[in-house]
Formats: sequence, C-alpha cells, structure tokens
Amino acid sequence: MSILIVGSLALDDVKTPTEERFNLLGGSAAYAAIAAGYFSPVNLVGIVGEDFPEEHWNFLQERGINLEGVQRAPGKTFRWSGEYMLDMNTRETRSVDLNVFETFSPQLPAAYRAHDFVLLANVAPDLQLQVLDQMEKPKFVVADTMDLWINIAQPALLELLKRIDMLILNDSEARELTKESSLIKAGKKIQSLGPRLVAIKKGEHGCLLFGEDDFFSCPAYPLEDIHDPTGAGDTFAGGLTGYLASCGEKEITFNTLKSAVVVGSVLASYNVEAFSLERLRSVEQSHILERFAQFKSMAHFDAELPGN
Amino acid sequence: MSILIVGSLALDDVKTPTEERFNLLGGSAAYAAIAAGYFSPVNLVGIVGEDFPEEHWNFLQERGINLEGVQRAPGKTFRWSGEYMLDMNTRETRSVDLNVFETFSPQLPAAYRAHDFVLLANVAPDLQLQVLDQMEKPKFVVADTMDLWINIAQPALLELLKRIDMLILNDSEARELTKESSLIKAGKKIQSLGPRLVAIKKGEHGCLLFGEDDFFSCPAYPLEDIHDPTGAGDTFAGGLTGYLASCGEKEITFNTLKSAVVVGSVLASYNVEAFSLERLRSVEQSHILERFAQFKSMAHFDAELPGN
Repeated sequence: MSILIVGSLALDDVKTPTEERFNLLGGSAAYAAIAAGYFSPVNLVGIVGEDFPEEHWNFLQERGINLEGVQRAPGKTFRWSGEYMLDMNTRETRSVDLNVFETFSPQLPAAYRAHDFVLLANVAPDLQLQVLDQMEKPKFVVADTMDLWINIAQPALLELLKRIDMLILNDSEARELTKESSLIKAGKKIQSLGPRLVAIKKGEHGCLLFGEDDFFSCPAYPLEDIHDPTGAGDTFAGGLTGYLASCGEKEITFNTLKSAVVVGSVLASYNVEAFSLERLRSVEQSHILERFAQFKSMAHFDAELPGN
Repeated sequence: MSILIVGSLALDDVKTPTEERFNLLGGSAAYAAIAAGYFSPVNLVGIVGEDFPEEHWNFLQERGINLEGVQRAPGKTFRWSGEYMLDMNTRETRSVDLNVFETFSPQLPAAYRAHDFVLLANVAPDLQLQVLDQMEKPKFVVADTMDLWINIAQPALLELLKRIDMLILNDSEARELTKESSLIKAGKKIQSLGPRLVAIKKGEHGCLLFGEDDFFSCPAYPLEDIHDPTGAGDTFAGGLTGYLASCGEKEITFNTLKSAVVVGSVLASYNVEAFSLERLRSVEQSHILERFAQFKSMAHFDAELPGN
C-alpha cells in the first residue's frame, strides 16, 4: 500500500570530529522516503529550490519515489549545517537557511488525498496540520517532531497530537513536552494528549513504544562507530511507517507495531554508518533481513524458571 | 547448587524526596543474598557489629540464608547514609561509617572453599581477591564493583578482572574504567582486561550483556515510580548469579545467561518499589514468573519481512 510522506528536502553541510562534507542530500523527507521505499511505494510532498542537484533528484527517482508532489520553486533549497562533538551524541546547529521553505505551503495533488498511510516527517506542526486538512480519511497517521516546535509552536503541536495515531520524538523532547523526568510517565502523558501510540527514541539506548495497553522496548544496534547520526530519526520514522503500510491490508496489531519499530531501528542503524544517505545506497533487502535477525537474537531470551 | 556470596551487611539511612527512613537492612550482600535465595541455597560471608538488629539477622535466616560465615564483631555495623534527588537517578552519599568493616578480612569456613558459583558482591577488590585466594576451583565467578574502587583501588580491581568470569558495573563506571564514551567499546575493552562476560547496567535503560561472540540488550521494566533505588544493582547481581547456580549442572549457554540477566532485572525492578528489602519480603516465585513473562512480552517481536 502506498504511503504519503511530507517533510523537508535539504542540502546539508555536516562536520564530524574526523571529517567535513558539503551539499549532502538531507532533510526529513529525503531520509524518510528512502527508508520507507524499501517496503512501500512512496509519494513525496515537499519543496526544493533551483539549486537542488539533479544527482539528488535522480537518486530519489531511481529509488522509485514519486516526486510529483515536490515543488521546484525559484530560489535556493533549504540548507542546514551542523557539527557533531567528540561523543557524536551532541550536535551543534551552525546555520539554518530556510530559503524556499520559508513560504512553503504543502499542496497535495488530487490523487494524494486518499492515502491510508501518512508520515508527517519533521517540519513545523502547522504545515503538518495543513496536510491533514487536505486528506480524506487516512487510516494511520504518524508524525515526527523536534524540540524547536515544542518550544516555538507548541499550540499547533498540541492541536496536531489530537489528529494523529502515533507521535515519534526523542527522549529529551518527550521530557521537555511533558515536564516529566520519567520517560514512562512522559510517554503516557503524551498519549493522554491524543496519539494512542508514542515512540520515544533514546539514541544509543534504543526506543520505547507505548501502546494502548502494551509496551515495547526496542534495543539499539551495538554500533562501535557512528559516522554521521544526521537523519537517523527520519530514517527510523520512514522505515517504521513504510513497513506498516506494507502490512496495510491487515489489521495493525501491537505485534506488527513492534516489528515496525525494529525495522525502523534497523534502517537507522545502517544510516548512521556513513554520511547523508550514502550507506542506504548499498543496503539491500537482504541486509535488512540480516540485521532484523540480529535484533531478534540480541533481544530474545527464553528460560524455564523454577516453578514453571 | 549452592552459591557463595561475599559482601557488606549494613545499616542504611535513606532519604528520598518524599520520605526518610533509618536503620534499614542494607549492604551489597544483604540484597544479593535475598535475591539469589529465590533460586539457590546461599552461604554468606560478611561481618556485622554488636548493634546489628536481631530482626535483620532473623529475616536473612528465615529466607534460608546460611549465616555461618558472617562474623559478629565487637563494635558497630557498617553504616551508610544517602539521599536521592528529585529525579531519583542522582544520589548523594551523606556519610559512610566503615566501623567493623574497616578491619574486615573475609574468612571462609572450610566447607565454603569448594563452591562452584561465587558472587563477589560490591566490596573493595582486595577483599574480593582474598576470597578467591581461599577458593578451590570455582566454576563461575561473578564480581560487582563501583566507581569508588575504580578511583582508589584500580590496580587491585585490574588484578581481580583476570580472575573472574563476569563483571557487573554500571554505565558511568564502565566509561570511567575504560575512558570510552561508547558503551559498546567500553564493554569490549573490559572483556579484553579479563572477564569473558560483562554486564553493563544502565538504570532506566536496562542492561547490556557482552558475551564472547554474543550480545544481549535487556530492557528495563517500565516503572512509573521508584521508591528507593538502593540495592538495585546488588539485587540484580544476586538474582543473576542465583539463577545461574540453579542451572549449574548444565553447561552455561548464552541463552541461560540472557535469562539470568532478565531474572536479575525482574528482582531489581521489584526491589526499587519500596525501601530497603521491604518489597522482596512479599515477592514470591509466582511474582517473578509473572514479571519474567512481562519482560518477554515487552522485548520479543516477530514478523515476516518482505523477502522472507
């Protein structure tokens, strides 16, 4: 089943403790679309400027991403520049140039309005709401967000929460949004604000999924070296939603949701192994299966306890 | 199969943001012994002073802990006093009075020298070494440690590492010992110092187990409220080693080790629900089975991925 993804397309400059790279393909929608594309046909909504390299456009198209909903506007593409500290967990944004994104208003082609599965990748919540306003009756809406929107656009974010099935955010964002230091309390409090499902990403500690009466703790893949964490969260969201859409005809059980979280984690674990989307250029279905099996082996246990 | 546990017996004063309690049963050996006792007969080695309450002594005995190796020395029992901050993760030690522990030298009754399973609960590494010096040929030695020993007794700790099968420590201690910020690198580096197994406890994020060619990530039980984290690590170590000893006739596979880590986590998750060992007074085998099943449900997943 095809999936609608709305988000940013960007050109990134990224500096890590060992290397610096320029004009990389970035943006929440780029990562999410490539990840989702492993499982479901993707229809993308976004905007790029006149300077968006043909190479990046072609890469997305070659992966089967439908770019009909991507506007090519006069002016420059959204640009982000960031630097990672020695521990690779701390990031400093060096500059953000919204450019064509500043006046972006997502317009859904008529054929896009009837999607069952929607991923509102990380953009301002008022843009995410504009997309929902144009949809007919989506079956499953996932939204990603970030600290910036919690700080400067919380009313719109709270409105969005009432209209989605699942919110994805990281641990510090969950604490900031709820003012709870316990992630368990934070997850449940977010559910009380609207979404029946909440995924809290914890970086090196994995991910927590809060369901209506269920709870899942997904481990992180034990990577020794992380080359570029940029887009890990977007990749996670894309892989997760793409996998769910591929199961879309069936009822979405909590078991399916668990596997979707693992699939998202698998793709994110590959993504951070190289700059930008470079690692995913060579990741094939068989690699996903392989690491999915590794996740299983590092999370599953079985025993006969006394008294069994 | 019976297990030998060496560690501290203490009287604790504990203050949390909501309550303060005095003269609680504490010490690494008390927690570890009660936890291990659910699975295996426990022989304890330690020391208490003349002021050690009969009530605490009787509680240990009623749980079937053999106290033949516990010296009752003139003077006062080891005392610890600590305070937890609002987030319950940060702890401040208010005072430590070694008392009878200051001159403690563990003496193993002759019958104790032949144990196959040994837990060197958290005490100074030179005391842990003294115990090993008195043992015949233990099959499986687990040692717990803490930041204090990494800072003031690292040479003895490094010597100990060469003589044990498994080290248990928490995330900040692992980083401190290895100077690695990645826990994956830290775990492997500790293995290279001696123990073929390393368990890194991550509090609210669960626990990582490093095996020879295997890796396990154990989730944390999703507790909303933690009443007293004191002894959680000791309880974990005791439950883990006690469970292993109960499987002792068989070969210890990585699958058994995974389950042991879960069993330790189950007991620790109960332990923090009340002050001191109060919660474990009412925890029965059936409760352990119940929460073990919950750990399974929150960690296990299964799916047919495309390409399967």
